[in-house]
Amino acid sequence: MATIEKGTGTIALGAFDKSAVLKKREFGRPAPGPDDIAIDNKFCGMCHSDLHACNGDWGMNMYPFTPGHEIAGIVTAVGANVKDFKVGDRAAVGCFVQSCGTCDLCSEQGQENYCPNAVQTYGTPFPEGKGDNFKETVGYHTNGGYSDKIVVNQRFVFQIPESISMEDAGPLLCAGITVFSPLNRHVLKKAGVGKGKKHVGIVGFGGLGHMAVKIAKAMGADVTVFSRSNKKEAQATAMGASLLVHTDAKSLSEQVRVFDCIIDTVSESHPVASIIGTLKVGGTMVLLGAIGAPFELSAFPLLVNNHSIEGSLVGGIPETKEMLEFCAKHDIVPHCKVIHARDAAAQFKAMSDGTSGAERYVIDISTLKEL
Amino acid sequence: MATIEKGTGTIALGAFDKSAVLKKREFGRPAPGPDDIAIDNKFCGMCHSDLHACNGDWGMNMYPFTPGHEIAGIVTAVGANVKDFKVGDRAAVGCFVQSCGTCDLCSEQGQENYCPNAVQTYGTPFPEGKGDNFKETVGYHTNGGYSDKIVVNQRFVFQIPESISMEDAGPLLCAGITVFSPLNRHVLKKAGVGKGKKHVGIVGFGGLGHMAVKIAKAMGADVTVFSRSNKKEAQATAMGASLLVHTDAKSLSEQVRVFDCIIDTVSESHPVASIIGTLKVGGTMVLLGAIGAPFELSAFPLLVNNHSIEGSLVGGIPETKEMLEFCAKHDIVPHCKVIHARDAAAQFKAMSDGTSGAERYVIDISTLKEL
Repeated sequence: MATIEKGTGTIALGAFDKSAVLKKREFGRPAPGPDDIAIDNKFCGMCHSDLHACNGDWGMNMYPFTPGHEIAGIVTAVGANVKDFKVGDRAAVGCFVQSCGTCDLCSEQGQENYCPNAVQTYGTPFPEGKGDNFKETVGYHTNGGYSDKIVVNQRFVFQIPESISMEDAGPLLCAGITVFSPLNRHVLKKAGVGKGKKHVGIVGFGGLGHMAVKIAKAMGADVTVFSRSNKKEAQATAMGASLLVHTDAKSLSEQVRVFDCIIDTVSESHPVASIIGTLKVGGTMVLLGAIGAPFELSAFPLLVNNHSIEGSLVGGIPETKEMLEFCAKHDIVPHCKVIHARDAAAQFKAMSDGTSGAERYVIDISTLKEL
Repeated sequence: MATIEKGTGTIALGAFDKSAVLKKREFGRPAPGPDDIAIDNKFCGMCHSDLHACNGDWGMNMYPFTPGHEIAGIVTAVGANVKDFKVGDRAAVGCFVQSCGTCDLCSEQGQENYCPNAVQTYGTPFPEGKGDNFKETVGYHTNGGYSDKIVVNQRFVFQIPESISMEDAGPLLCAGITVFSPLNRHVLKKAGVGKGKKHVGIVGFGGLGHMAVKIAKAMGADVTVFSRSNKKEAQATAMGASLLVHTDAKSLSEQVRVFDCIIDTVSESHPVASIIGTLKVGGTMVLLGAIGAPFELSAFPLLVNNHSIEGSLVGGIPETKEMLEFCAKHDIVPHCKVIHARDAAAQFKAMSDGTSGAERYVIDISTLKEL
């Protein structure tokens, strides 16, 4: 990226302090370097992580900053080295805008998401990059997709498959890949292992959870939703989940060696150990939520059941492309609700209160100019 | 098994209460049924689990009982259906003497060790088995290998490879398979995944730990021992470990993304979360010790490193055979010290105090008659 991210010309919503009240702001974007793509943002999904970041929960406190890492837009300019995109293409950007490109994770394993120098789409110190990225940083930080423009290294820009609308594309790049990656490892790639269908449990039925239900169903699994509320049963069933299990102690204790894999999307404290107890022998529970407080585990039940617990964070570039193809092939789109930019602050409040539903709220970026 | 386990004729050591003081006792063994093998025991390894069971730590309180699940002996009689053993064969028995044989774990997955009806070699209610096992139990419990005879279903009896001595064979059936199984999954079968050699950490350097070092080396890994004491460094190095890491907070914090897999053999409380933190991205820590107190984990470091923690318990029949072949092929034997039966009680005390070394103590069963 050629120049630093200051100045004007980009209209955005931003958080100005830990109160996380979204307000209008303006800043500059760099001119695209030879490997960069400039995008006019059209829609941006609202992820619970955006709220955590704005609240300062994860130590991001470089206010003001603009969140948003579920971006869909139209390419407006490409650098000289960009071959796979042209002006007018539909493009999506997810949780990362750069990584070192040279470590094993980047160069061999396609796991840029775990590169120690990965640059998140917002709130990460901004690297001056001319060929050798990360030689120095310039004191500014990245700003995300609650904005009308962005400039991103071509490696981190994805083509939106023809069958997927601009409204629906953004959330695939975070909610979609976050649940696809562990399901890909533990369900799709192990589909032939063991007898019969895989039985997958999904803990939490919000933005991530409802995508996990759809993707696990498309992978051929039986799907059960775990929820603390029975209000979501009809909606879970409509998406193909076969059962809803309450996360109270009694309901969980009745589920013995039931699940091959559990995808846990909840970031508040919840009974992790009891939920693991519902796995089959050799089953894995994947944590996707950055639960704030430590949780307790006992060794004995893990041992006698060969249970595993794993953390997972988004996904790498090759797997993100695989996810987009998979979702296009199986007609999987997030359950989105497009909102006006002026309603984004109220939506943050609803996410904080836990009153938002099994759908993804997506900001119509064209409404930013009406603020 | 044709008759219940009462009467006389078998000389043994046993625990009579939770003081776990081993004393001489006598009881009967069943006559072998058509699928059974009768064995004259020659050597039996002393496992830390034996001590836990005798102490009543794991809820086994059917005193008196005889521990021991690392048995090597000579076949003295075989039932009519037994084809793979004949009188005079060298035979080994491990942690289980029966399982249902019909569940998926038994009939398809070769994971009899996780069968909900698996019968442990000692301290489990004894099933009356005539064809259909487990239809009824008879109120007695199994007794292990600190005894001069045993009768076991043929599925749970293993041929001892020619190159392995009777003294060394028993500990392979518990310490050996317990560490082989996770190393087989995470090191040998993943040897081609990722760049270069696997780097394996072994936590604890006693009976299990020293076997894990030998097996991991034979699988081609670089091996590092984690220990709270530096007294074991020379011995670890002599077995092929390249480094010793202390388990204090500072030493652990210096190991960042180093290990592909960690085998944790320690059953006392120890800093599990800090040790997990030394894994590479996608690395797995396998717990083998039934740590008594719950331990705390935080979600965030698991997420951002794709770390996993898994429990593992011994291994199934096919994998136990695989382990015996592997150890024979690579000349791997436990570091054993043969002791007189009269010294077994003192050895329990040393195990309890943590003063026993990186070796397995093996009772010479012929000395039982001198008590």
